[in-house]
Amino acid sequence: MEQRVSLITLGVADVARSRAFYEALGWTASTLGDGSVAFFQCGGMILSLFARADLAGDAGLPAEGDGFRATALAYNTRSHDEVDTVLADMIAAGATLVKPAQEAFWGGYAGYAADLDGHLWEIAWNPGFAIAEDGSVQLPE
Amino acid sequence: MEQRVSLITLGVADVARSRAFYEALGWTASTLGDGSVAFFQCGGMILSLFARADLAGDAGLPAEGDGFRATALAYNTRSHDEVDTVLADMIAAGATLVKPAQEAFWGGYAGYAADLDGHLWEIAWNPGFAIAEDGSVQLPE
Repeated sequence: MEQRVSLITLGVADVARSRAFYEALGWTASTLGDGSVAFFQCGGMILSLFARADLAGDAGLPAEGDGFRATALAYNTRSHDEVDTVLADMIAAGATLVKPAQEAFWGGYAGYAADLDGHLWEIAWNPGFAIAEDGSVQLPE
Repeated sequence: MEQRVSLITLGVADVARSRAFYEALGWTASTLGDGSVAFFQCGGMILSLFARADLAGDAGLPAEGDGFRATALAYNTRSHDEVDTVLADMIAAGATLVKPAQEAFWGGYAGYAADLDGHLWEIAWNPGFAIAEDGSVQLPE
């Protein structure tokens, strides 16, 4: 197994509504898909939105679930102050503020928001992780 | 907000144990971190493992949660038969088979496994999504 992730799929209540949320943040969905799924090319990886019940059904699992999902996505900003801008943009698009940005013990600045379906995003400025021109993030050597 | 994801963090019961699981699949963790976190460079993105309670605590959320997490990661294989190989390797490393691989209605071949902490992975051969030499996946135009 190569060291890579091809897709992150987020189960959502309403694909069109969640797609519009990410589009409001400036993202562009692929024209691929019949409306039952939305794909966003994110560098060499894809973020997809799929009905929660369909995702559970595809895996043959019950769709019921509550509470903490033990999963968080992170968006690393290019500057300290951009954390506040991104969080504000997310809230304006309908996200819920989970934790206001604050200086972090590891030397960065970060806060959390949840998207329309409760998927957790950490918005973080981490001066130790380089962000390339193309948006890719590299661990220090 | 640029169209990208910097990190996926999976909350786990035991970081060392989960790190060993991914290393058993052939992955190499970064030397970064004091043992309370493990980082895997995945192309231009990072997969990290962090104690479930610490992840919840960082976001200021209760750590309790049950059932379907409405999230799946996917690993796209380079061939049809590689799906079975990867699923078998995951099971051998301690993962749980959730759905045996089968031909999919969308023309591919896919199955699901859950890692040591129940994080869902779809292992899929999707002839419509190109995989580059470096492992990056691109949506068709």
